[in-house]
Amino acid sequence: MDELVKAVLAFRDQRDWRQFHNPKDLAISITLEAAELLEHFQWKTPAEVETFLADAEHRRQVGEEMADVLILLVSMADAVGLDLVETAWAKLEENARKYPVERARGTAKKYDQLLP
Amino acid sequence: MDELVKAVLAFRDQRDWRQFHNPKDLAISITLEAAELLEHFQWKTPAEVETFLADAEHRRQVGEEMADVLILLVSMADAVGLDLVETAWAKLEENARKYPVERARGTAKKYDQLLP
Amino acid sequence: MDELVKAVLAFRDQRDWRQFHNPKDLAISITLEAAELLEHFQWKTPAEVETFLADAEHRRQVGEEMADVLILLVSMADAVGLDLVETAWAKLEENARKYPVERARGTAKKYDQLLP
Amino acid sequence: MDELVKAVLAFRDQRDWRQFHNPKDLAISITLEAAELLEHFQWKTPAEVETFLADAEHRRQVGEEMADVLILLVSMADAVGLDLVETAWAKLEENARKYPVERARGTAKKYDQLLP
Repeated sequence: MDELVKAVLAFRDQRDWRQFHNPKDLAISITLEAAELLEHFQWKTPAEVETFLADAEHRRQVGEEMADVLILLVSMADAVGLDLVETAWAKLEENARKYPVERARGTAKKYDQLLP
Repeated sequence: MDELVKAVLAFRDQRDWRQFHNPKDLAISITLEAAELLEHFQWKTPAEVETFLADAEHRRQVGEEMADVLILLVSMADAVGLDLVETAWAKLEENARKYPVERARGTAKKYDQLLP
Repeated sequence: MDELVKAVLAFRDQRDWRQFHNPKDLAISITLEAAELLEHFQWKTPAEVETFLADAEHRRQVGEEMADVLILLVSMADAVGLDLVETAWAKLEENARKYPVERARGTAKKYDQLLP
Repeated sequence: MDELVKAVLAFRDQRDWRQFHNPKDLAISITLEAAELLEHFQWKTPAEVETFLADAEHRRQVGEEMADVLILLVSMADAVGLDLVETAWAKLEENARKYPVERARGTAKKYDQLLP
């Protein structure tokens, strides 16, 4: 991952793209790439999703959109001055507090709707 | 990152959430978390974005939304059967082909609008 | 609808909000409100969606998010200088060309994947 | 607008598309079309947005994406059993309560951050 972060930032700097990579436009782009990821699943039933993903080429296309989101997250972490993986560890700890195992098990409810 | 992936999947399995983590709903959630990230920048001018991000607590909040996106990407990679970091390397190579340094330098144009 | 358009623009002007209503920020807001609409359906199976929408209060909440999207579309049409309902008529005509009844019937395929 | 609603629903029914038009997939599609609208403004400064929209063909393209969102909102209102324009009137009244003129004038703050 460290190598990937370096490669993503080198890619950006070789193209002199830092000037475009302000946090607001990066957040827009992350949303747009997430939407392109979601587009693969539009109008599909669970069974159709399964058939779709059984095809290696489709999995590769889905992976490309996921990669786009990750690459932009890496760029944004740099633009904002955060360590992406560290923020994920911190969030995972917070999630563990908000979703204690005994209350959150087997339910998709949001933390503010979990039984006390 | 390997440790993070393990922790994210363990978090999910301890709560028996794999049943909810189908690719379509994960793609929806990635889009929704990306939108929450973008919400921090809504209606803000570049100068206001800068002032906003000069505050450590605001940076932490932005980092939380970025973390949510990353955690969901990790879950989705597992649900689809992909290695997230590997897909990012592959995409970076493809981007290098689509955006050659000499043509892409200093422009925000999409690859299909770059001069030949 | 004409009355609604007038009311939406009067609401904006009474609050001196035209200064914020540039097309880019309006497009961001439309995306964010659409995401809030989608959030109501996150993690829900078709059966759960049906149960959820059988409740009048839930329908009202969903309607609120739809209203937010429409109100912002009206504001954006004004900011860009378009008549929203007219653009919808033009698009409907184009869709009729792209999705001829005999080929599009009963399929969710995109127009570029319909059989010739 | 009444005519438009009828035309949108007739378009759908002629193609036997009601079967696909469940509320969750419609909410996904509204989000995806909103993202396509936003894509037109990605990486653009306010000055670049102005230049972009000075071109009639660009305005037409932006109008197409807005039309897609409106057409899907109309379909969703029917799927959920709501009158779209009525919900917008109700929301406008609620917004008037949440954003009183004297407090909301000239500020882009959310209602819960307005001074009392």
